[in-house]
Amino acid sequence: MALTPARTMPGVLELLPLDQIAFQRMLDTIRRNYERFGFLPIETPVIEYSDVLLTKTGGETERQVYFVQSTGALGAADKGDKPELALRFDLTVPLARYVAEHEHDLSFPFRRYQMQRVYRGERAQRGRFREFYQCDIDVIGKDSLSVRYDAEIPAVIYSVFRELDVGAFTIQLNNRKLMRGYFESLGVADSEQQTLVLREVDKLDKRGPGYVRETLTGENFGLSGDVADRILAFVQVRSATVADAFEKLDALGAGSEQFEQGRAELKEVLGLIRDFGVPETHFALNLSIARGLDYYTGTVYETTLNDHQGIGSVCSGGRYENLAGQYTKSHLPGVGISIGLTRLYWQLRDAGLIDTAQSTVDVLVTQMDAAQIPTYLAVATELRNAGIATEVVMDGGKLGKQFKYADRAGIRFAIVIGEDEIAKGVVTVKDLRREDQFEVARDALVKTLRVELAQAEVGR
Amino acid sequence: MALTPARTMPGVLELLPLDQIAFQRMLDTIRRNYERFGFLPIETPVIEYSDVLLTKTGGETERQVYFVQSTGALGAADKGDKPELALRFDLTVPLARYVAEHEHDLSFPFRRYQMQRVYRGERAQRGRFREFYQCDIDVIGKDSLSVRYDAEIPAVIYSVFRELDVGAFTIQLNNRKLMRGYFESLGVADSEQQTLVLREVDKLDKRGPGYVRETLTGENFGLSGDVADRILAFVQVRSATVADAFEKLDALGAGSEQFEQGRAELKEVLGLIRDFGVPETHFALNLSIARGLDYYTGTVYETTLNDHQGIGSVCSGGRYENLAGQYTKSHLPGVGISIGLTRLYWQLRDAGLIDTAQSTVDVLVTQMDAAQIPTYLAVATELRNAGIATEVVMDGGKLGKQFKYADRAGIRFAIVIGEDEIAKGVVTVKDLRREDQFEVARDALVKTLRVELAQAEVGR
Repeated sequence: MALTPARTMPGVLELLPLDQIAFQRMLDTIRRNYERFGFLPIETPVIEYSDVLLTKTGGETERQVYFVQSTGALGAADKGDKPELALRFDLTVPLARYVAEHEHDLSFPFRRYQMQRVYRGERAQRGRFREFYQCDIDVIGKDSLSVRYDAEIPAVIYSVFRELDVGAFTIQLNNRKLMRGYFESLGVADSEQQTLVLREVDKLDKRGPGYVRETLTGENFGLSGDVADRILAFVQVRSATVADAFEKLDALGAGSEQFEQGRAELKEVLGLIRDFGVPETHFALNLSIARGLDYYTGTVYETTLNDHQGIGSVCSGGRYENLAGQYTKSHLPGVGISIGLTRLYWQLRDAGLIDTAQSTVDVLVTQMDAAQIPTYLAVATELRNAGIATEVVMDGGKLGKQFKYADRAGIRFAIVIGEDEIAKGVVTVKDLRREDQFEVARDALVKTLRVELAQAEVGR
Repeated sequence: MALTPARTMPGVLELLPLDQIAFQRMLDTIRRNYERFGFLPIETPVIEYSDVLLTKTGGETERQVYFVQSTGALGAADKGDKPELALRFDLTVPLARYVAEHEHDLSFPFRRYQMQRVYRGERAQRGRFREFYQCDIDVIGKDSLSVRYDAEIPAVIYSVFRELDVGAFTIQLNNRKLMRGYFESLGVADSEQQTLVLREVDKLDKRGPGYVRETLTGENFGLSGDVADRILAFVQVRSATVADAFEKLDALGAGSEQFEQGRAELKEVLGLIRDFGVPETHFALNLSIARGLDYYTGTVYETTLNDHQGIGSVCSGGRYENLAGQYTKSHLPGVGISIGLTRLYWQLRDAGLIDTAQSTVDVLVTQMDAAQIPTYLAVATELRNAGIATEVVMDGGKLGKQFKYADRAGIRFAIVIGEDEIAKGVVTVKDLRREDQFEVARDALVKTLRVELAQAEVGR
């Protein structure tokens, strides 16, 4: 029989076990922090009805959707109908559908986290993923939701990224009302045009002020040089501390009602973030941040790694006016963020910030003598019952080969029990990391290894 | 704008948060036990190339596959071609592809666990799922793999199901070589016909001996009444203890080489399972078990809940001769099992064996006075830093309503800090489960709640 080449499609990240362990540790860290802040887990199906998924979108997103058909339904596509089912492309639309569908069984404010994979038919390109994890939190209010919740989100981001241990980072904030209000005061009164300007200034940190000024004064926008300069001055505002942020916000002068509302919200949020215990070194105003989606209506967030600005935002989100207007008449305002973990992991690994993990397997019980297998299994059971992950060599073979296997597989301790050890009531422990070995009384083995592993955990 | 009804397709299990927590606990328990036995995690993409996924199958499976097309590729289907991409329908084919693709980066025996969702276009029917979790372990050898590993698998099953706390269960074992060898000795020499007989006797526990005898002596099989009776006597063998199993296996008399090999394997495996520390009450011979798939070549397993036989097998698998022959010339024998967790969860809940979980949120810090929010946030940070999952009411409103929210959301402790408490340096803790409340010094709060929560954990 001819062999089929074993391969995956481009744009998916498939990891070897020790890398998968590192990835899983990140997922666990994020989950632990989300739970610590009182967010509840949900999971939604990967496949949704196309009409449910594609109510709002169109444009870019719709061109990237994966449609799904069971074998029986394949014929139907010949008629040119759009298939009935599709894979989710984010977790926000499924959240909206979930909240609308289960509204009467949920308590509000509804605080959910969701960490699942999403699918986009992106062009194949380095660093673009067609399947990737999103790790989202959102707080959804019924009818209303205090702007104070907008301050909780950065507290969660801080807690997550501190534990992910990826170096210094800054949570950057802005407010869309402040931006729109400011543009309004400069004569950019049309909401559509404001949106276009928002999208341009969002490119400031990537493209630089020259590019943005040129675009704003160019044919499509036709703003005067003076207006463009004032927009550029506005969007270049950054703050160092909360006091500095307040000063810079005040220095913007009086403005429209929308502008004043945005300013008041930003000030309340900034003050509360500090009350949440987030150090002032870790959050700042950045008035160029707009986020691409129209969806956001107030506070917006981006998070950047101070020493790796090139990576871009590693965690973004914001406040929205109404989550699920396409499914329900209930008014459901909310605020949330998303971490695109697959891309983040890939970038951090690329930047040398993530190593291949040590194995989740702590101990390999080697096999010196097949007749002693019952002893080996009894030792393994003792270790496992103490929560120490243990593998037993069942196949046998040369001891040197068994050590080599442990070393290659990233297992730290290899245990040897031969005739000598049995006679003396001890076991030999080979520490493959320290390239050291020692004898320990059989009944002290669990305790000894527990201490060694706990020390290694602290030292990580 | 007309509303789109918020709904999911039939055959998916979407849970409310407290049920999701119960489900997640089961996933965590399974993962913890898989890791404890030294299995390594992998994850594979949901979407695979159709030609990779469908090399071996055909028949039932192929009729249930979900095909995937990105928007751009939709036109191509008009040509009647089968789409290039499909959703995985199990975790075994992706494992085979993974091992073949990454063979030179893996250490053998390769011990992997994988807990992901799979997709099958089943007819919509109560208890049938189109999206469901499989939780698999496999040990894959290169060139060879000792039959001793077949004894490790039941040890893992025992460990998992004991911790899942679903009542008494029995891991039932058989060996395909023993079965085929026995049929051979009765004149059923053709391998194809042996397979058909295997499939029939596998129905014994569901359909009863009368049905099976009728089929075997019927037109399609045409076996003599005597042969059918001997097959029925064989497949009705069950054991109570290991000694009993040895006796019953010996009582089968001498047989072909294949038969003797099967008997020797079963005996070695049964003895080793005992050495692994699995109580003899929890595993037994069941010579009717065959498993539907041709794939299995030696040991086969099923696990049933003693008090819920109707649920059928909750964990099945077996030994196979070659994992990935369709992708690589390497010979890769293995042994593994799968837990279909979505169905298991659904059945256990249906049987009243699983409750809705308590919330992952331990504490709700209520808001009596908005001016005290910095205090509330400081208390919450202390609790979170101590690993206590804490939600803070940011919106305000009547205290009674806040308690009601906590109660409905399944949060056990509500914390109240008003003027009185601040003056006295205490906080009031309302225990919503015990319907009790007490005051505690502010600096003793963390310790007190930790003790309460640890006690609750033990009592679970």
